[in-house]
Formats: sequence, C-alpha cells, structure tokens
Amino acid sequence: MAHTLTVSIDAMGGDAGPSVVVSALMRTVVRHPGVHFLLHGDEAQLHALVERHPRLKNCVSVRHAPGRVAMEDKPSHVLRRGRDTSMWHTILSVKNDEANVAVSAGNTGALMAVSMFNLGIIEGVARPAIASIWPTLKGQTVVLDCGANVTATDEQLVDFAVMGEAFAHAIFGLERPRVGLLNVGSEEQKGNDAVKGAAAILRGSNLPIAFHGFIEGDDITKGTVDVVVTDGFTGNIALKTAEGTAKLVAQFLRQSLRRSMLGRLGAVIASGSLNALRRKLDPRASNGGIFLGLNGVVVKSHGGTDAVGFASALDMAIDMAKADINARITADRRSIAAKSAGDRAAEL
Amino acid sequence: MAHTLTVSIDAMGGDAGPSVVVSALMRTVVRHPGVHFLLHGDEAQLHALVERHPRLKNCVSVRHAPGRVAMEDKPSHVLRRGRDTSMWHTILSVKNDEANVAVSAGNTGALMAVSMFNLGIIEGVARPAIASIWPTLKGQTVVLDCGANVTATDEQLVDFAVMGEAFAHAIFGLERPRVGLLNVGSEEQKGNDAVKGAAAILRGSNLPIAFHGFIEGDDITKGTVDVVVTDGFTGNIALKTAEGTAKLVAQFLRQSLRRSMLGRLGAVIASGSLNALRRKLDPRASNGGIFLGLNGVVVKSHGGTDAVGFASALDMAIDMAKADINARITADRRSIAAKSAGDRAAEL
Repeated sequence: MAHTLTVSIDAMGGDAGPSVVVSALMRTVVRHPGVHFLLHGDEAQLHALVERHPRLKNCVSVRHAPGRVAMEDKPSHVLRRGRDTSMWHTILSVKNDEANVAVSAGNTGALMAVSMFNLGIIEGVARPAIASIWPTLKGQTVVLDCGANVTATDEQLVDFAVMGEAFAHAIFGLERPRVGLLNVGSEEQKGNDAVKGAAAILRGSNLPIAFHGFIEGDDITKGTVDVVVTDGFTGNIALKTAEGTAKLVAQFLRQSLRRSMLGRLGAVIASGSLNALRRKLDPRASNGGIFLGLNGVVVKSHGGTDAVGFASALDMAIDMAKADINARITADRRSIAAKSAGDRAAEL
Repeated sequence: MAHTLTVSIDAMGGDAGPSVVVSALMRTVVRHPGVHFLLHGDEAQLHALVERHPRLKNCVSVRHAPGRVAMEDKPSHVLRRGRDTSMWHTILSVKNDEANVAVSAGNTGALMAVSMFNLGIIEGVARPAIASIWPTLKGQTVVLDCGANVTATDEQLVDFAVMGEAFAHAIFGLERPRVGLLNVGSEEQKGNDAVKGAAAILRGSNLPIAFHGFIEGDDITKGTVDVVVTDGFTGNIALKTAEGTAKLVAQFLRQSLRRSMLGRLGAVIASGSLNALRRKLDPRASNGGIFLGLNGVVVKSHGGTDAVGFASALDMAIDMAKADINARITADRRSIAAKSAGDRAAEL
C-alpha cells in the first residue's frame, strides 16, 4: 500500500512507555488506513510488542534508538548528550523528510529544545508556541501559548495570533477565525504593555485576521473567539486551572449524588447521560499540545496518558500533517514584516 | 442596643442599585444582630426603601451622597470629580473611624483608587492586592492578587504572601497556613524572574510562613496550599477561567441529562442532589473580593450580583472587621524589612 503520510513516534516517551504507544496504534490504524508509523526506541522491546499485532505489520517500522530522555532531564542536558535518544531520532525523521509529523509524550522542555535545535523556527517568527484545543459552549477554541515561553513581548503575541489563526483555519476549517487577546478586561486601556502593544499592532495591520480585541478568562469557555492569544505563563496556568476546576465540579457532582438514596437512584437511572458527560469531560479526548512556529510539526502528548489519550494525540498529528499550516504562517508573517517596513518608510 | 461594629455600604454601587442592597440587609441583620450599617446614597430613595422594613430601623442609618460612580468611569476621573459620590463617602466613613469596614459593588478600578487615596497603604507594603476565596477539594483557599495590579515584582509577590497568610490565619483560623507561589511548574528552575525571586526571598526569610514552594494551576482546586500567590494579571485570568469552566461543566451536565428520557427521569429523582450541587457551585456564595494592604478593610462585591450575593459580601466584610488582620500584616512586613536590612548589613 502506498502511504500518504508518515508519523514519527517517540515510543519511549511518557510515563507508561512503549506498550501504551502500541495499544494506541491499534486504535489509530483503524481510523487512519494508509498512514505509516515510524517507532523510535528500543528495537527488541518494540519488535516484540509490534509482532503481537499482525495488523500493525504493514504500516509500522521500528527504528532503534538506545537512549531515552527522562522526565526530569534538563533541556540543556538533552541537547548536549541526548543524540542517541528516541526523542532525538523522532524529531530527526521529520527534519530528514522521512516523516511529516512527530509525536512524543516525553518531557515538554526537552522536546521543545530538541525540536527547535533540529527543525529551526519559521523565518520571521521569534519563538515557537504550544497550542491546545479547549471545549467551549459553542464548540472548540485554540489557546496559545500554553507554556513554551514564560514571557512574551507584544510582537511575539502577534506571532502567536498569526500562528493560531492559521491553525484554526486549517484544523477547524474556518474561513475567518476570530482572534482574541486574553486580558484582565475588555476595555482598550486595560492590561500590561505587551497586550496593549499587541492589540495596537493587530488593529493596525492589514493581515486577513478577524481581530476581536481583548477577551477575559471566562470568554475562553464561552467560545467568544476561535483563537485565544496569551503569553505562555498565563496560558499554562489558565489551562491547568481549568483542568483542576473541571475535576472539582465532577467530584462535587459525585459527592452530591452519593449523599442521598434518591441521589444514588437517580444516578443509576441517568447513568447513560452521566457517562456521556464523563466522555465529554475526558481530558484524553483532546490530548495533545501542538508546537507551532517550527519548520515541521510536533505534537506533545500528556506524559501520563494511556492508549486512548495517546491515540488522540496521533489523531491530532495526522490532522496537522494533512493541513499545510506552516505555509500560511510564513505568508502572514511576511505580510506583517512588509507592512511594518512600509510604516517605517512612511514615517521617514 | 450598643453596636459592636459598623459596616459602611455604597448603596448606589452595582448594576441593580439600592433595592438589592436593602434586600441583602434583610438577610444580614438576621445573621449578625448588633452590627450597624451606614448606607450612603440618595437619601430620599434609601429612606423610602428602608422604611418598608421595620426590622432595619434600629440598625441602619442613611447618609446622603448625591453623586454616583458609573461602571465605565475611569479611576482618575473619580479621583478628580467623585468627592460627592456614594462610593467616596462609603470609604470616608472608614477613614474617619465611623465604620470598621466598607462594602461596594461599584466599579473595581475606581473603588481601589478611592480606597488607596483615602485610606493609604500599610507601611512597608508597596501595592494593595485583591484576594478572593476559592472552593477546593479540601475546603477553601485564598488567591491573591486577583486583579488590583497588572504586574508584580518579586518583592510585591512576597508582600502578597504576607497579606494572604495573615488573611488565611484570621479568616480560616489556621495556625500555619501553607503558602504557594503559582507557576508553570513545581521545579525550582521554572518560571519568570518575579516568581523565582519571590521564592528565593520566601525561602530565605525568617517569617513564620509555611512556604510550600511553587504550585501549578490545578493545585488551586486540589487544595495543595491555603494561600495561592500570583500577580494580578495571571490571578484575574485564572479566576475568570475557573468561573467559565465551572459554568461550562454545569451546562454540559444539563445538556447530557436533557438528551434522553432516562436522563430526564434520573434528574427528577436526584433533584435534591443536583440542587445541592447547584448551591455548592453558586458563585454568589463566595461573592466578594477583599482589598488587602490598605489602612482599612474594603470588600468589593460583584457588580452584577443579587441580594444573596451582596449578603455574602456583607458576611465577608463582617468577618474581616472582626479579625484584626492588618496588625499581623504590619508586623510581618516589619520583620521582612528588618531581615533584609540585617542581610544588607551582613554583606558590608
């Protein structure tokens, strides 16, 4: 069978290791026939796992990598001494055009460092960002940066807007995604210098971006915009606060239902509905942080996920590989650069 | 009856106006006999409302203030031209020792500006903060700053830790509240300069603070610590993101239950439990941002709240007035100043 695209997988990343990756693949090959998978890691271990599943035979290749990045390894250490690791080899396959997209459940900082080192950043973009998809009252929205950086200047926030817009266009299929800047109020005079500066650039640009203006934290789940732009410090904390809050509410629901006989009875009768809710809130369903801004597509799965979660990350990676979003990011970034060069010339 | 304490109320603040304030008072006077209330605002309107309720006669006084701060008024405008407003008079009563605590549902920025101008900041504290109480899996936790400032230096974060610790001691009755700094990871090398600097100061200080170290967004609702310290930009966004997420999950629950016959039937049978959950998630139950760091206590109620929510803000104000937390903040701040003067002397 001719393969339309190839996914490079770090089979040794994550807390659970290669057995989770292979179980995930059993789900993925059914959903995506014709996709090829390169598994990087301990050859003997991977061969033994793959051979148990005849279904994987024609679509999976194993590549030996003796080393393994640990969750506590510092990015700088991995850059110096990690060239034999499964993570490094996973990214290298994308660099060498053997694969269209890379997936790893390994250490986020190390994965970003190895990706930046090997793939490089899109011309004109200062820093990559991690995007993640959130459920909302209206559907879904993409939030970035969720933690690639701990600070962001106004121009970096504009880069995130450009990258997020390209993502929403490609993945959500929206003609003109609405882009909002996360702030402490929606009025123009509110916020820190970075968000005020970014808003001024976005309002003045001739980009094909539907800039909504400032939004507040509760606008994320309201679905006020399709793309939420923020710095990586705020975005990471907002993401984890939302995850914690969803778990808290689910726990309160369980406690309330258990506390009385009628509660327990009602829960049994409505168990189908409650299970549907559980599936809807399952963080595994939208598992995967997408690294944007690199010359290549990299998806980070949650380190502690299981086969269902890792399969979601593979779905995301395959969607990303099919949509050529980097071409749009490059074009939009050039258009901002040309506009700002034009503005400077006009000022002279 | 001799009044033990007096609450000064901006009766014209908030979207709904004085009728909500008076309805709230009807609840509050039952819960807190012996407390006196000063209502600032339009005398004729307030007298008419108060006279309908004989119960309020002995514990409520009306003070005329002709002006009113609008939700869209800029703080600088209110400082220049707002001396006749109900908000200004409300704070002035605390300044003049006629009241122990002030409550307003008006414009947050204006209320903070008027409070700072009239009450001043506690000696040694650089900036006040807005604290709010969150429900957690273990009980409750106080988060600050939730939006008084859009940036914070390392020393300002330390001030917030001191103020939050004093708050948790006084209001939660904890002997040694655990204090955590909100960050993008719990490892020491993570985060921006402000959080790393603040952690270094808190680890090296001889304050009686149980410093837990860094926490992540999901630790807030886990109840990992009793006091969550962060800058006002991140704190405000985390707070509103959590509110939005709780609403999203509640909406998903309603949708799931409505979608099937068994879901609807189960919901009817478990309606007691579901109502208990609704009460637990009701944002009105913990309505009130507390301004910390001022020479006086000010509580900000949500502008769009109803009588139940405003009564919660009054409860909070009365609890605050009973606990003399500013004395503890002042003492701890002095101890930091002495320690840092000692450190500088030792370096010479």
